[in-house]
Amino acid sequence: MNTPIGFIGTGRMGTPMIQNLIAAGFSVRVYSRTMEHTATVVAAGAIACGNPAATVSADGIVLTMLADDAAVRAVMLGENGIWQKLGPGGVHVSMSTIAPTTALDFAKLHEERGSSYVAAPVFGRPDVAAAGKLWVCTSGNAAAKARVRPILAALGQGVVDFGDHVESANVLKLCGNFMVAAATEAMAEAFTLAEKAEVNKQAALELLCGGLFASPIYRNYGQSVVDVSHDPAKFALRLGLKDLRLVRETAVHYGVPMPLADLIFNRLQSGVAKGRGELDWTGLALGAREDAGLNE
Amino acid sequence: MNTPIGFIGTGRMGTPMIQNLIAAGFSVRVYSRTMEHTATVVAAGAIACGNPAATVSADGIVLTMLADDAAVRAVMLGENGIWQKLGPGGVHVSMSTIAPTTALDFAKLHEERGSSYVAAPVFGRPDVAAAGKLWVCTSGNAAAKARVRPILAALGQGVVDFGDHVESANVLKLCGNFMVAAATEAMAEAFTLAEKAEVNKQAALELLCGGLFASPIYRNYGQSVVDVSHDPAKFALRLGLKDLRLVRETAVHYGVPMPLADLIFNRLQSGVAKGRGELDWTGLALGAREDAGLNE
Amino acid sequence: MNTPIGFIGTGRMGTPMIQNLIAAGFSVRVYSRTMEHTATVVAAGAIACGNPAATVSADGIVLTMLADDAAVRAVMLGENGIWQKLGPGGVHVSMSTIAPTTALDFAKLHEERGSSYVAAPVFGRPDVAAAGKLWVCTSGNAAAKARVRPILAALGQGVVDFGDHVESANVLKLCGNFMVAAATEAMAEAFTLAEKAEVNKQAALELLCGGLFASPIYRNYGQSVVDVSHDPAKFALRLGLKDLRLVRETAVHYGVPMPLADLIFNRLQSGVAKGRGELDWTGLALGAREDAGLNE
Amino acid sequence: MNTPIGFIGTGRMGTPMIQNLIAAGFSVRVYSRTMEHTATVVAAGAIACGNPAATVSADGIVLTMLADDAAVRAVMLGENGIWQKLGPGGVHVSMSTIAPTTALDFAKLHEERGSSYVAAPVFGRPDVAAAGKLWVCTSGNAAAKARVRPILAALGQGVVDFGDHVESANVLKLCGNFMVAAATEAMAEAFTLAEKAEVNKQAALELLCGGLFASPIYRNYGQSVVDVSHDPAKFALRLGLKDLRLVRETAVHYGVPMPLADLIFNRLQSGVAKGRGELDWTGLALGAREDAGLNE
Repeated sequence: MNTPIGFIGTGRMGTPMIQNLIAAGFSVRVYSRTMEHTATVVAAGAIACGNPAATVSADGIVLTMLADDAAVRAVMLGENGIWQKLGPGGVHVSMSTIAPTTALDFAKLHEERGSSYVAAPVFGRPDVAAAGKLWVCTSGNAAAKARVRPILAALGQGVVDFGDHVESANVLKLCGNFMVAAATEAMAEAFTLAEKAEVNKQAALELLCGGLFASPIYRNYGQSVVDVSHDPAKFALRLGLKDLRLVRETAVHYGVPMPLADLIFNRLQSGVAKGRGELDWTGLALGAREDAGLNE
Repeated sequence: MNTPIGFIGTGRMGTPMIQNLIAAGFSVRVYSRTMEHTATVVAAGAIACGNPAATVSADGIVLTMLADDAAVRAVMLGENGIWQKLGPGGVHVSMSTIAPTTALDFAKLHEERGSSYVAAPVFGRPDVAAAGKLWVCTSGNAAAKARVRPILAALGQGVVDFGDHVESANVLKLCGNFMVAAATEAMAEAFTLAEKAEVNKQAALELLCGGLFASPIYRNYGQSVVDVSHDPAKFALRLGLKDLRLVRETAVHYGVPMPLADLIFNRLQSGVAKGRGELDWTGLALGAREDAGLNE
Repeated sequence: MNTPIGFIGTGRMGTPMIQNLIAAGFSVRVYSRTMEHTATVVAAGAIACGNPAATVSADGIVLTMLADDAAVRAVMLGENGIWQKLGPGGVHVSMSTIAPTTALDFAKLHEERGSSYVAAPVFGRPDVAAAGKLWVCTSGNAAAKARVRPILAALGQGVVDFGDHVESANVLKLCGNFMVAAATEAMAEAFTLAEKAEVNKQAALELLCGGLFASPIYRNYGQSVVDVSHDPAKFALRLGLKDLRLVRETAVHYGVPMPLADLIFNRLQSGVAKGRGELDWTGLALGAREDAGLNE
Repeated sequence: MNTPIGFIGTGRMGTPMIQNLIAAGFSVRVYSRTMEHTATVVAAGAIACGNPAATVSADGIVLTMLADDAAVRAVMLGENGIWQKLGPGGVHVSMSTIAPTTALDFAKLHEERGSSYVAAPVFGRPDVAAAGKLWVCTSGNAAAKARVRPILAALGQGVVDFGDHVESANVLKLCGNFMVAAATEAMAEAFTLAEKAEVNKQAALELLCGGLFASPIYRNYGQSVVDVSHDPAKFALRLGLKDLRLVRETAVHYGVPMPLADLIFNRLQSGVAKGRGELDWTGLALGAREDAGLNE
């Protein structure tokens, strides 16, 4: 654990992840486009670097946790990017939710230089990251995955592997986010019906999400839906829109009609059009309410 | 517990429920349109009666567990029906999944004669009923509910009350069935995408339904979807279609657009049109597969 | 043309139809639940009657043009209804948009008494009725249709027959209304896209509805959509909701998933929930606008 | 009319368009990636060139009529492309159905070199092109449009202008194609209902598409739907899928939820997944049939 690892992205997810890595004994060198954002992790022991390449040695390991495909592309292929720096033996662990096709592109580029690309997107919001309870999905080169596994193990309660196809973990991550949004829409419609029929929504939530659907997603998201409370955001609606856009593009890529994904995408797109992009993405539930003539 | 209670309907749900009531010390008088169907419960100690009215005394308690609105109507209002028999103090506990508007009609009719109608639909399939683990939702007259509560407690792991409006428990039950079907559609689309993207579906199921969605519905229904295995039926697709039809009619009654309910209804309607009415209702997942060009 | 014919319903459609019958030389005896509504046609030469039965002799012909299934049922089967009055040889020509299953029920009842039921729903709004340019669809008993054909010919520019199954004309009428609403939704989405992309909507309308879609529906309905002008109503949105409800119920009856009908139904249902029931039914187009964040 | 004009693309649309230009007195220099495809127009008097740039002088006019964005990009920006060749005063008239954002990109590139880009997509299939009855929509630089107007006038029955924003004509073209596909889906659902209700579909078509919907699209496309006849293709289903993909991407770009476009897109996507990409795009109507349990 003496060799430092690089970590790029010190936002709401990256910060607690870095803290957990330090707590687990890793040395971490960090980079953020906005230097002030590194203050918290530097206070915890991380070393701030002036550019992406400076976080890692040529055969080292660097993790990226960024907002979208473009942000990963920038730190990988931009000036002082990690792709130029990493050489044979180097590993890029990409933990953001990005398009599977982008993952394939990145993996090919790394292969050209002898470095490896491991897809390792995670499930869980910042509070889950802080608790070290993320679920991590991996795919890509087996040797590279074996090398980074201790690092990933320090970040979550489980690492589930999806094999050699580097895009697989990203497909799976998109499936998961889609299912979360689908559950939100289902509760939005059900609890709107309950409200207009004058059924006690809180009791309904407790029955359904305490029994049949006794899982964190249903309990937590369901409470937001019942309370019509979507502010402050744990995960912004505009980011949910981005994720569902990726789901749709991936579905088109593989030739899979997904009408429920379309329905949810339209709820999110409408939310952004109505100025709700910074609400929590459970705010997609407002669509069903408004269609029924209930106010926001 | 000396006064016998009536129980009408000795099908796949009624039979284990009656057995549990007997095991809990109740005397039970039963009726079924098909007399042979009472054999199992008679062997367990129930007394078979020749018509609905004969199962109950004028001020007694009678439970009905039948396939649909028409079946309940028949034993309540048909020849030798329980409505004529029950008088002041009598209670009809109606446990079937029926329309909220039908519940309202029945409650008014009982009120005319001084008897009470308690709505008490349940969540759980026959194996859950047998284990005495049903969830029971109640609504209606408070005194009547108090009187029947010990009986309902013997049938499940919890009784959740939804107040005085007699139709509320039925609305809630329909919301729950809708949410189950919605989860099935979400998994159908997600796992179809996974399959066409060559992602290991079993691993996907274990990650998603072991973590975020760690609830019985997701695990059990999800396994059927992953295995593309919908036979034999635990709950027939044609009955699921009936339930979603009730969801749609109830949504229209209360003025609530439910596009996700429409999507699921169409999956089920298409399933019946293709001759799959006797498959398990998780077979609605075949729709997403076929739209993606995968075979049944 | 000496024998008078009965006509029940003197609303926005019935009034001009009666005027055209009189202009064509028919004697017409009319009934309306609201007696004042007969003033216009009485001034034109119609004779007002005190109840439905009084409009027609036992073997005569009576036309009904009313709001919905219930209104037809009332004048047919209610006190002094036409069903009791008509006997062998009598013909009831039912021109309202009602459910095909209701038409079947009514036809059976007439058959019991030796009278005939002819389904003859029409296409066209009040201005079209006034111009004598309705399109009339018929179905039912061949001899009865032959007898009433001169009357129907006086009402429109064409009578198209759909054979012996009495419900067929009603199915066809519902198909037509569905297609009109579908065209409205298509234009609503297209012109909303045009507006947000800053494309001249009026020029778009003229190109599309002057060429490819050069038909009255596209031109007239399209102009309302482009102008976002849905008041006053030529055909009220709440009546459109009723018609689409009949489309959905008919689709369920015959086992036909119609996702586009569901989409339109939800637009209309949402319109009523938002207090727009008295707008013109082209107001369903407001749904697409609002989803895109444009104001009403 | 002495200066020759360039025309790139000699497929099913380009060929009759070139023939009409020659018939109108224009000299035409043509290029096709597949040289054999120029034989017909060369026989009619066109001059075949060895590469795109050779079809046009530096300040000349060149029209492109190609399959998709990539094909236009190739002849514009590839080796011996027209972009390098055209200089100040040169005009590129782009008649293909491409993305509005692509049109914007191309226009900017031309501006850099002093040449102009005119968007001029057309409505009409090959038989309409042959009859010189296309509808042409234009947008872009006013002076350039004025210069090419006589050429466009020779191709169709009308040229409708959509102003200075170069992408506008492409947005409009996508709106039109969307509306055509929407009408097809509406007829597919309506005529499937008619078929299962045993209503005469041909009579239904004649009534609806002879009256309310008396336009070429409804009559021609409707006949294919009624006959369940989608082979041979006038416009291939896979190309329809491409167009609807552009509609969806454009809708996302401008923030417009279009659920009906999603429905149609999924019908087309499913059609390709089932191996029907080479059928006519009216074959999207098979989706509604199959969902209702009717066979192909």
